[in-house]
Amino acid sequence: MPSRDAQVLTGRAIEYTDDETIFEGYAVTSDCGDQNLPCVVLTHDWSGLTDPTKQLVHRYAALGYICFALDVYGKGVRGDPVGFNAPLMDPLMSDRALLSRRLLAGYKAAGQLPGVDNTRMAVVGYCFGGLCALDLARAAAPNLKAAVSFHGGLQAPISGERSPIDASILLLHGWDDPMAPPEDVLAVAAELTAAEADWQLHAYGHAKHAFTFEAAKFPERGIVYDQMADERSWAAMRAHLDGTLGL
Amino acid sequence: MPSRDAQVLTGRAIEYTDDETIFEGYAVTSDCGDQNLPCVVLTHDWSGLTDPTKQLVHRYAALGYICFALDVYGKGVRGDPVGFNAPLMDPLMSDRALLSRRLLAGYKAAGQLPGVDNTRMAVVGYCFGGLCALDLARAAAPNLKAAVSFHGGLQAPISGERSPIDASILLLHGWDDPMAPPEDVLAVAAELTAAEADWQLHAYGHAKHAFTFEAAKFPERGIVYDQMADERSWAAMRAHLDGTLGL
Repeated sequence: MPSRDAQVLTGRAIEYTDDETIFEGYAVTSDCGDQNLPCVVLTHDWSGLTDPTKQLVHRYAALGYICFALDVYGKGVRGDPVGFNAPLMDPLMSDRALLSRRLLAGYKAAGQLPGVDNTRMAVVGYCFGGLCALDLARAAAPNLKAAVSFHGGLQAPISGERSPIDASILLLHGWDDPMAPPEDVLAVAAELTAAEADWQLHAYGHAKHAFTFEAAKFPERGIVYDQMADERSWAAMRAHLDGTLGL
Repeated sequence: MPSRDAQVLTGRAIEYTDDETIFEGYAVTSDCGDQNLPCVVLTHDWSGLTDPTKQLVHRYAALGYICFALDVYGKGVRGDPVGFNAPLMDPLMSDRALLSRRLLAGYKAAGQLPGVDNTRMAVVGYCFGGLCALDLARAAAPNLKAAVSFHGGLQAPISGERSPIDASILLLHGWDDPMAPPEDVLAVAAELTAAEADWQLHAYGHAKHAFTFEAAKFPERGIVYDQMADERSWAAMRAHLDGTLGL
C-alpha cells in the first residue's frame, strides 16, 4: 500500500470496554477495500490519549498501517500534554497487572477493527507509552510481532510470572534520560535476554527524556527535544516495522 | 555515484611508511575520472590485513566509496583470520600511543589516494579494528566525519590527553560479546559523552563477538556469527555513512 498523506486521513473515536471500564481509543483505518493491513497500536504517554498521540496516529497511518491508539485511563480521563500527569499514571505504575489487563483490552479492540490483519500487529509507545509497549510484549499479546519504545520507562514489573517474549523489541533510548538511567538499561537487557526475546537497544548520546517531542523544553527536568535523535529513532522504527510487519 | 559490483573491482596494495616501519595497505580507488569521492578507511581485525578485510574493502567500494584498508602491523606481518593472533595485537594494545600513530599514518595515506575527497573521511573496523576505529576518532584525525565499530573493543586508553571527538560515532555491539561486557559499554558511553561526541550505540540482544563474520563458530569463546545482527548492523552502518559522508 502506498503511503498516505497524514493530513487528509480521517480519525475517529472507538469506544470499547474491559467489562469494568469504558475506554475511548482513536483510529485511522483503511480506505483500501478488501485488503487487510497490518496494525500499529499506539500506547499513549502519561497525559492520556491527547492531541499529540492523535497526531501520531495520523503519522503512522500515513506510513500505510492501520493505526489505533488505545486508552488505559478510561473515556474522558485526559491530562495535559505539557503538564504534570503523575496522578493519572501512578495508579497504573503501582498496579502493573491492571495496566496489563487494560493494554490487552485495547489490543483486542485494535485487532477487531475493520481491515486489520490481526496476524500482523505491532505496538509503539512514547514515554509512559514506551513502558506500556514493553508491558504488552511482556504480557504475550497474541500475534504481537514488534514492540517499539521511544524514550520509555524500562522497569520490569516487580512480581508476576515471566513468560518468553515473542515480539521483536526495539528500545529507542536517550542515554541521558533521567527516567531510565543506565542501571535500568542493564536490567532490561538482562530481562529481555532471559525472556529469549529478539531485542535491540539504540542509545543516543546526550539525548534526554522525550527527545521526539518538539514541545519538550524542560532541561531542568531532563526533558528536551533532540532533532537528531528524533530523526534517527523514526528511521529505526520504520525499518523495524517494515522488517517485522512486512509492509 | 552508482553502486558498483564488488567482484569486478580491482584492489591493489599500497605501500606507505611512518618513517619507522613500512606498511602495506589495500585499496579500491575510483574509476570516475575527475570526481572526488568520500573515503572509507578500514581498520583490520587482530589477524592483520588478511583476506576477510580485503573482501570488506571490495564490499565498501561497491557501495560507491573509495575504500582503503590501512595496516597497523607492518608489511608482511599477517596472522590467521580464524586463528589466535594475540601475539600480533597485544603489543599495540599495550601501547595505545603507538597504535594511534600507526592509525594516523594509515589515515594520512588514505587521504592521499587519487580521487579521494579528503574532507569526507570515515573509519570502520571490526573486532580489534573496531577499537582502532574508535582510537582514530579519539586521536582527532583531521576531517574524520564518522567512526563505526562492529563488535569492537571499547576500552579507552588508560592514560593520555582526552580531546573532544568530532567524528560521529556508531557502535554496533553484541550485548553478549565477552570481549566488551556491560561495564565497558557504560564506560565508553561516559567517555564519549564527556568528549562531546555525537554517539550512538546499537546493541543486539544475544549477539556475541564477531557477529558479522560468517566463519565465527567458536561458541565456547563467545565468538559466533549472527545473521540478524549482521544484517541489522550493515544497514545501520550504511545509514550512518550516508548521513555523515553525504554519498
